[in-house]
Formats: sequence, structure tokens, C-alpha cells
Amino acid sequence: MDKKQTNSPVSLKHITIQDPFWSRETELVRTAVLPYQWDALNDRIPGAAKSYCMHNFRAAVRRNEKKRKLGDAFLEPHFTKEGWVFTPEDPQNPDDQFYGFVFQDSDFYKWIEAVAYSLTQHPDPQLQAIADEAIDIVCKAQLENGYLDTLYILSGTDKIFTNLQDHHELYCLGHLIEGAVAYYEATKKTPLLDAACRYADYVSSCFGEEEGKRRGYPGHEIAEMALVRLYQTTGKERYLKLARFFVDERGSRPYYFDKEKNLSSPSDELRYSYYQAHLPVRAQHEAVGHAVRAVYLYSGMAAVAKETNDASLFDACGRLWDNMVGKKLYITGGIGQTHMGEAFSFPYDLPNDTAYAETCASIGLMFFARRMLEIHPDRRYADEMERALYNTVLSGMALDGKSFFYVNPLEVLPEACRLDERKFHVKPVRQKWFGCACCPPNLARLIGSIGSYAYTENETTLFAHLYVGGTVQKQVGGKSFSVCVSSEFPWNGCVRIQFPEDTPEFTLALRIPGWCSTYALAGAGGAKQTLRDGYLYLTKAFRRTDCLTLTLPMEVCIRQCSPLVRENIGKVAVTRGPVVYCLESVDNGEGLWRLSLSPDAAAKVEPICIAGEEFPSIRIPGFRQRVSEDSAELYKPYTIPEKEPVILRFVPYYTWANRGENEMSVWVQSE
Amino acid sequence: MDKKQTNSPVSLKHITIQDPFWSRETELVRTAVLPYQWDALNDRIPGAAKSYCMHNFRAAVRRNEKKRKLGDAFLEPHFTKEGWVFTPEDPQNPDDQFYGFVFQDSDFYKWIEAVAYSLTQHPDPQLQAIADEAIDIVCKAQLENGYLDTLYILSGTDKIFTNLQDHHELYCLGHLIEGAVAYYEATKKTPLLDAACRYADYVSSCFGEEEGKRRGYPGHEIAEMALVRLYQTTGKERYLKLARFFVDERGSRPYYFDKEKNLSSPSDELRYSYYQAHLPVRAQHEAVGHAVRAVYLYSGMAAVAKETNDASLFDACGRLWDNMVGKKLYITGGIGQTHMGEAFSFPYDLPNDTAYAETCASIGLMFFARRMLEIHPDRRYADEMERALYNTVLSGMALDGKSFFYVNPLEVLPEACRLDERKFHVKPVRQKWFGCACCPPNLARLIGSIGSYAYTENETTLFAHLYVGGTVQKQVGGKSFSVCVSSEFPWNGCVRIQFPEDTPEFTLALRIPGWCSTYALAGAGGAKQTLRDGYLYLTKAFRRTDCLTLTLPMEVCIRQCSPLVRENIGKVAVTRGPVVYCLESVDNGEGLWRLSLSPDAAAKVEPICIAGEEFPSIRIPGFRQRVSEDSAELYKPYTIPEKEPVILRFVPYYTWANRGENEMSVWVQSE
Repeated sequence: MDKKQTNSPVSLKHITIQDPFWSRETELVRTAVLPYQWDALNDRIPGAAKSYCMHNFRAAVRRNEKKRKLGDAFLEPHFTKEGWVFTPEDPQNPDDQFYGFVFQDSDFYKWIEAVAYSLTQHPDPQLQAIADEAIDIVCKAQLENGYLDTLYILSGTDKIFTNLQDHHELYCLGHLIEGAVAYYEATKKTPLLDAACRYADYVSSCFGEEEGKRRGYPGHEIAEMALVRLYQTTGKERYLKLARFFVDERGSRPYYFDKEKNLSSPSDELRYSYYQAHLPVRAQHEAVGHAVRAVYLYSGMAAVAKETNDASLFDACGRLWDNMVGKKLYITGGIGQTHMGEAFSFPYDLPNDTAYAETCASIGLMFFARRMLEIHPDRRYADEMERALYNTVLSGMALDGKSFFYVNPLEVLPEACRLDERKFHVKPVRQKWFGCACCPPNLARLIGSIGSYAYTENETTLFAHLYVGGTVQKQVGGKSFSVCVSSEFPWNGCVRIQFPEDTPEFTLALRIPGWCSTYALAGAGGAKQTLRDGYLYLTKAFRRTDCLTLTLPMEVCIRQCSPLVRENIGKVAVTRGPVVYCLESVDNGEGLWRLSLSPDAAAKVEPICIAGEEFPSIRIPGFRQRVSEDSAELYKPYTIPEKEPVILRFVPYYTWANRGENEMSVWVQSE
Repeated sequence: MDKKQTNSPVSLKHITIQDPFWSRETELVRTAVLPYQWDALNDRIPGAAKSYCMHNFRAAVRRNEKKRKLGDAFLEPHFTKEGWVFTPEDPQNPDDQFYGFVFQDSDFYKWIEAVAYSLTQHPDPQLQAIADEAIDIVCKAQLENGYLDTLYILSGTDKIFTNLQDHHELYCLGHLIEGAVAYYEATKKTPLLDAACRYADYVSSCFGEEEGKRRGYPGHEIAEMALVRLYQTTGKERYLKLARFFVDERGSRPYYFDKEKNLSSPSDELRYSYYQAHLPVRAQHEAVGHAVRAVYLYSGMAAVAKETNDASLFDACGRLWDNMVGKKLYITGGIGQTHMGEAFSFPYDLPNDTAYAETCASIGLMFFARRMLEIHPDRRYADEMERALYNTVLSGMALDGKSFFYVNPLEVLPEACRLDERKFHVKPVRQKWFGCACCPPNLARLIGSIGSYAYTENETTLFAHLYVGGTVQKQVGGKSFSVCVSSEFPWNGCVRIQFPEDTPEFTLALRIPGWCSTYALAGAGGAKQTLRDGYLYLTKAFRRTDCLTLTLPMEVCIRQCSPLVRENIGKVAVTRGPVVYCLESVDNGEGLWRLSLSPDAAAKVEPICIAGEEFPSIRIPGFRQRVSEDSAELYKPYTIPEKEPVILRFVPYYTWANRGENEMSVWVQSE
């Protein structure tokens, strides 16, 4: 790898999104998701699980004020066997207790990050006022030494950093940084960024290789990639150093979490693999453990590798990528095959109906993919980033932005979700809000920053990974110019690129997706063209009159699964461009498993209306195995199954469950 | 129903088993299983989980002796928050504590029952001496009032019958009765029967409709059918009355277990369905909850229905039977589709790889079937009894009788059992002994009493349900005579029936199994023949020279599953006679899911050697989907799968996992 050859996301300040698909999504985030989530963080959604997120920050502010007032007379609140209780002056006061998950603070940080992205695209003084007020509360919740996690501030500061394995102080640091950097970039306001730096400085004073510092690392990763971002924003080396320390310290023996818990005998690797701490990261070859943790770590590894020009770390990332994408990835871009530990299972174990495939895990996969692309633009990364985005990630949110999936299975029988405890994690309809509400705000921040996944750049080159329509500002040799992209992704593969004014010579790198068997480019006369790693590099000083037309044919494609996957043997899936399709019983009748299709049957794309909007559906002739009265008998001598011809209708996977509770299946029997 | 038309099992005293298949099984129980289990009950198996069963009885004897010695000065041991802690005189004495599951006593009762059956067939003074000595200990453990459960005797007698839901005092009563009656019938010795009667009398004084008695019922059923058996043995009506009370009280509102736990708000039906106590039994239409509990209850219901001539109760049994067998039964006779609660799942939900299908549940299904047959001889019941027996029940034990399966799945990938927590209940090889060791002794008592499932009788008729070879003594009109049956079931359907001497006129009812498409009977000249409900009734005074030959062709049969079952769509299973076959990777290579067969391919029966013994295996031409290098890629555009012709070799399901850890599958893709 060569640091000079790397690239970075185009600043959201330099991207204006104008895209029939993504303008709608970002508007949905702005008008529906962000206000809803603000209400949720403040426990104002009737009937939804309480968040307590802002409650905790406010209680921490009261604690700090009390401490200032009382001085030496102040008694710390404490954690006891009876639970997270209190201030000693008023042990029964529920207003001063911490409630919720140990990572509850991070919900605000994700929200503020999404707000920042939204403000970049769409200035909104009222929203900004709400945000500033909230930031003020958060900043006041911070301790004088820079520590900022309401769990311990409210429950006993003497226990700070004593349970890195299970508590999320460093995870909250990571999200604080992500939110703070985004808000600073959007508004140039510094209070939250200052708070993030102060917390990061405090953490930096506590953790590291130096004598007297703890050699710990986060139980739930994210601080690694966030600290790299803080370094990129502030230029302060200590944040990069801390990130690298967290990455490299992971997996050291004796295990830090064992020491933390004073375990007499060492834990086995299996238990530590949940945290990806079973081995030093450079010795890890298999994507294991909690899927979100895993891809957050890998993202951090790639971020550190890029900034430190660390080839062996990048190699480790590549191995983990190949293992994950080659052996543990659902066709929908979902990862985490089992709900036990929300984790990866073993290679080629890809059950459809008990899949976990958490929305956040696929978002994390996008983080990882983008960071790999920054080091090495190869469509392999972008293809999977796009697969995750248009399928599992978007599936996480209802079309109206008001309910969310945490789990994104590939086959659902609603009856089973209610009656089979093995599938209680699978919900047949999206939920309003979760007690553990990591996915909704994560979705909001991902959608809000979609431009930074679509476009990256280095000095001479603008990379188009996802064809999100809009205008990108690029500077080459001190000259600034615009590149206008219009597309109808993910429904139509025709991309048009224009230049409002003549440009200096630069390189435009256009991704040719793996799902295209052919492509065509028109209007690039005079450009030097190179195809490398799935990117078409065009170098030219473009003219105001130039209009590039890239055609990436989106044909219906019947796909098969590797025969190493037990669950999909004899089955096929329907895709078109980056979009995976599925069957729902609302269109196809009940008993989806009794349907089959011939892979060479002619498919037809036809609009369908879902929740008031039009989407391209796919109609394919197929069959339905009949259930005659006597075929209800369980076991009978074989007779040729009676099948009736039917037209199967597939809808985009991410739009499923927007028409009430019903059966769904991605894979269908092949005739 | 008509009580006079019912039938009862032929006494084991009147059956001598001489059968190539069953003599081997009963010998295995006698020579391997019973001695091994006695060692297990006494914690003498190195490396196996401790049972503590006999320890608990011995500790109870010491407690009783101490009480006798100390009189009023005796202080009861007590259950405290810190656990089962105790004799106040010596609180640290581990020798006086109760260990193990709350139903640990029952392991001895099941063992003594199996011993009794073995002694009936094979007198063994040494074994009988061990048994008598053990019985002496058990009798001395009984309290003066008749109560007998070491859990409470050792942990605080003031708590007796205060937690019927979770503790197993009435379950232990049931097994005590079963063991005691069997031992009495085998040896005519009365101490254990007396102990059982005294405990039953005590329970009868505590439970019932009468003022002042508790209106409770067992959390885990079995006492119901056991009490009927005690009534049949002793003639004492109070036991039948208590059985009927337990059956009919079940499901009454408000729920007894709620009252017991002083719950302020009533529990929902779903929770109570685990115990089959959600509704009065006559209003139950679906087999639900813990599968062993369920079939034990249904057996008790059928037993009470028969003895009390209760048509509506029999109807309820019939509905539950139809639901269970028609919608929730594995082709192997396994029941209990989910390990969550070891329970029934919803109709047609029959996953192969996560099946629970506990050995004990299929034994319980045999109990239920036999009792239904006693009321109404219909091959529907016998077919399923036989299916359970030759598949799931026998699968519970290794061919050498030294290791056991608790769970009997229909598809196993050993890797998944180790790496996928959803399948941790599935073991790829049989285990030596379980902490919860209900299955091994249950198997021993079932095999030891196989004659009573094979043959039942009433005044004029001898029913042959399973063609177990041997001699059956029958008495008609005061005259006793023998019927000799020889067969090679389950491998050969030719049954020969002879009469060592002329018989008075009587009826021989021969079951024509549902798996036969045709049958032939020779040598029945002069007999009045009627075919009713799958039984061929032959009435005649048979001659010494008569030799009946019943031919029940055992052809290889490719079976399909109802299309209402998701998991088996497009698949077939191979059966021959009552035996279900399966694929193992030791014969067929790894990746069994990549195999397929054409249902019309010619099958060939061929001997195979498994663990030193010969079994008929089945060879069928089929195909294996190739895994080429590039087919390891997860998702690719569809191409016709490359398949190579192979010969599939199927072995009897119950013999699987006798050649080390390997893949197994009952269902195979159909071409």
C-alpha cells in the first residue's frame, strides 16, 4: 500500500444531493426520523420503550452542579447490589438515577451526528437551536477531568474504566467523537468537539503502553475509527496513537478482561472471540463474534492502516474481509448469522429464517468497505457496500421512516415468530422503537452521510462508488469545479455525468459494478481510459459541453448460492442491479415454500404500489405445489407433486413488511 | 366405547421372548445397561456426571434414623436462600444434603422397573439381591406418614407439596408406583409395593375434591397412569379416583400453580400450556407444551377413560392423538419440535436440524398408543407405536448399550453442534450419562417390557400389535395354551404362528401395518376371518398342526412429506417396513445436503456392518452436486448445477452415530 495513493471521502460540504431515490431518503430522515428520535431520546413517544438518554445527561448535570455547590461535602452516588441507585443525600430520588442500557449516551451522539449531516444538506435554524441546547446539556454533564459517561457519573465515579468488557465507556467516546466531528464540520461550532477532545485526552492519559497506564481496550469497538477521524480533523497525533494502541493491544495475553475481572484461570479463545479479542488482530483470519463489534473493529483497523501506512494491518483487514464476504455474508448484505451473541457463525452456515443480520452490522460493513476503498479502490469492496446498503440497511427502516427492524431475516413465517421461541428475535413487522435502540439512529446517520460513501477523492481523482445523483465540488491544482451526476439508481443503470464549466485535467474513476455483465460509456471522447480493479479511470480536462453517459444494464438476474451452503441448495434468488428481491405472501398467497420457478423463465419488470409509492416489481412464471386434502397427511409414499402454474411476483427485499404482517422469502425453489 | 370390548397387555409372566432382534435388545439391557445404570445411580462411573440418586435415599435414611433417635429434639433440615443447606446439627455435612435434579429419585424407580422386567424374563438371584437391598434403603427413606421424596425429606418437610409446578413429588410417586408394581409382579415381594401404596394413600389424603384437601395436580404428569396401574394391581378404587381427580382438575381456573405461587394476576394460557394445564383436558384440541409431560398426561387420560368407561375423555384423547400424529410428528416417531421447553411447536413446523425429539417423548408416545389400543384396537395407533419404537426410541441407545441420545434430530452437521449455539442441544455422538438422566433408564424399562406392547388380550382375543417373536400364554374358558410367534421384524415381514397344542376356539387379531400395500395369509383354513381397523381377526379352535404364515412385504418405500411442512419441500425419505433410513457421511462423503435421488430409481437392499453387526442397508443410485473451485463463491448468476452420479447408501436411522461423529440426514433432495 502507498499512503499517497489513498483517497478520502469527499466532504459533505462539497456534495449536494439531488437524486430521486436519495433525496427522498434524506428528506425522510430530516422530516420524520430526526424529530421522532428526538422525542424518543426524551421519552415522549407514547407506547414506545423509554430511552432515558437525555434524562441521564440531565441527571449528570444536576450531579455536577451539586458537587460544585457542596465541594468537599459532596458524596458520590454509588452502584450497589440493589442496582444503579442514587445520590446519598436523596437515595430514593429516581430523577438522579441512571436508566437504560450501559451505552445509552451513544443514542444522542448518533442522533447529533445525523442532525449534523442533515444541517449540511438542509440548513434548519430551529433544528440547530434544539441541537445546540442539547449539546450544552451534554457538555455540562462532562466531569472536570474530561470523563464523560453518564453511567458512571451517576453511579459511582470510583468505578470508572473497571469493566471495559461489559460497559461501554470507550464505545460512547467513539460515538461522541463521530457526532462531535460531524457537528463541527456542519456548523463550525466547537463546544461538542472540545468535549470530545477533552474526553479523548482523558482516555489517552489513562490508556497506553507507557508505565502506569492501563493496557485495556474497548469491549465494544468504535473508538478506534472515531479516534482516527478526530486525528484527521484536529491533526493531533495522540488520537491516532491511541487508536493504534487500542487496535494492537487487542488479543494480548494474559487477556485484559480476565485481569479486569481478577479471573484465576484464563478464559478460552471462544469466549474472547465474541469481542474479537481472542488473538492479536494481525493474527486473525476469520470474522468472528458479535458482528457489529467485528466490523467496527475492522473499520478501525483499516482506518489506522491507512493513516499509518501499515501494510501488514491492511493485509489483516483483507483476510478478514475475504473471510466475511466469501463465507459469511447473506445475499442481502446481512452479517451475523445467529442471534446467540448477535454473532457470526461458522463458514457457509447461512440459515435464512433464524438469521440475525442486524441493521447496524450491515451499516458497519459499509464503514469497513468504505475504509478499504480509501486504501485500495477495488469494486469488490464497493459491490458489497452497495449490496448492504440497498438491501439490509434500507430494510432496517419502514418506507415511512417511522418503524425499524433490528433483525433482517431472509425468510419469515409470522406464525413462527410468535410461536417458536427460536425465532423470537425475528419480528414480522417493524417496531416503533427499541429499548436497545442502536439501529434507528445509526440508520439516520448513515443515510445523512450517504454522499461520503458515494464519492471519495484524492488530489487528482474523483471516485464514484455509488451513483448517487447530485453535484460534487472538486479542487484540482487550486481550481475548484463541479461534477454533476444524475442517475436513477438503484432502479435504472443509466448514469449521466456533466460539467457546468470546463475543468482542469483530472481523473474520474467510475465503478463498473460486479452485477453488470457488460457496460457502455458514451461521450468520453478524448479521455484517457483505463479499467483497473473494476473502476474505469477517465483522465481529461472536461469541457462544459461534455456529457458522459454510462450504461450499466440492470437485468433481472436469477442467482444461485454456493452448494457449500446447506440452506439454499436447490434454490435461487432474484436480483436486479444491486437490489435483491423477495416474495411476500400478500402478492403470492400463503405457503411461499411451495412456490418454485424455472431459472430460464422470462422475467418482466412491472410497477407495484407499496405504501403509496411505486416500485419496480418482477414477475416470473413459476409453480405452486398443490395442497390437496390428502396431502395434509404427513408421510406418504412418493407421488409426483401436483403443481399449478402461477406468476410469482417479487418485490425489492428492503420494501418487505410495509403492507402488514405476512410471509416473506428471498430464496425460492428452482425447478 | 365399551369397557367390555377393551383389552389389556398380556402379563410379562405369560410371554417368553425368543426373537433374533428383541432377545438381543433385552440381553443388552440385562448385561450392559442395568449394571451400568446401577453404577451410575451410585456415582461409580468415572468421567460421567454424578447422579446422586442412591446418595439421596441413603441420606434420607440417616435423617429418619436421627429423627427417631432424637425424638422431639430433632430439628428439620431446611431449604434457605443460600441453597439446599441443612441438618442444623451439622450444617456443613455434605453427606446429608440433597443433590441433583428435583426428580432424582425417579431414576431409581425406573431402574427397578427395568430390573423387574428383566427378572421376569431372566431370573438372576444376584441382581435380585442387589435390588432387594436397594429397595430396603428406599423403604427406610419413607416418612412415617407415607411421604417419600428425598428432595423434601432432606430439605425441609414443612414445604411438602408447596411447589407442585416445579418440583416433582407426584412425578416421583408415579415412577415409584410403576417400579413397585413391576417388581411385585416379577417377584411377588411386597415391600416396595407397600411403600408405593403408603405414599399413594398419603397423597390421596392430601389431594382431592373433598373439603380441606388441596385441588392441585402434578407439574409433570405420570402419576395419572401409574395410579390406574396401582388400581389394576390392588383393586383399590381410591387410586383410580385420585387419577381421575388429577386428570379432571387440570386446567381449572383460577390456575392452581398461580395460587401456589400467590401470583396477584393470573398467568396466560401460553405459560400453562407447557404443563398442559391451560385448559381442562376435555377442552384441549392441540398437543402442546413439554412433549414428555404431554404424552404422559394423554396416557393417563386414556388409562382413566378405559377404566371408567368415559367416552368423552376418550374422545379428547382421540383429538389430541390426531393433532399430534397428523401435524406434529417426525417421520421417525419423534415428538417435541423445539428444545425451548423440550416442547411441541406449531402444526407442520418440523425442523430437522434443531428437532428435540426426545427419546423419552417417543417412549411416552408408545405409552399413549398402547393405551389407545387397549380401548380401540386400530392399526393407526399401532403403526405410530411401531414407528416410534424402531426409530427414535432405539436411536436413544448405542448398539453396545453404553451411551445414549436424549435428543434425536433428523439432520446433523457435527460442526454446527459445536459452533452454533442454537444446536447445542443436538449431540453428534451419544453421551455416557446425563446429569438429567431420564432417557437411559426409561429405555431400559421400555425394552424390558416390550412384550406388553407387542401383545394385548381380552377374554376371547389375543392381539398381536408388534410381531415380537416368542411364546405367549393365553387362557380362554379356563383352558391355558400357547401361541408361538416367530418373525424377523423389523427386517423381514414374514411372520409364522404355531400352536404347540390344540387350542380352544379363540380369536387371534393380527395387525396389518399401514406400511404394507398388500399382505398374504396362509394356513388359516377354517378360520373365520374379518378385517377391521387394520386388524385381521381369525377365529378358530387351532390345531397343533396349524401353521399360519403372514406375509407383510417390506419393500423399500420412498416417502414424501406433506407440502405443508416447509422443511421437507422437494425432499424424500427412505423407509422399509417400520424402519426409517438415513444417510451418514461415513458412507456417502461429506456435504449430505448436496446429494439427491430420483424417487423412481431402483433400490437394492444390501448388508452393511455397523459396530460389528450386520444390518440391511439400502443402495439407491443418485447424484451429488459438485463443488468446483469457483462454486465456493457465495452468489453467482444461475447455471445448471453440475451433478455426478453416485450410489447413495442408507442405513437404519436408529443405527446412526455408531461409527464415530459424522453428518446424518433423513431427508434427501428429490430430483
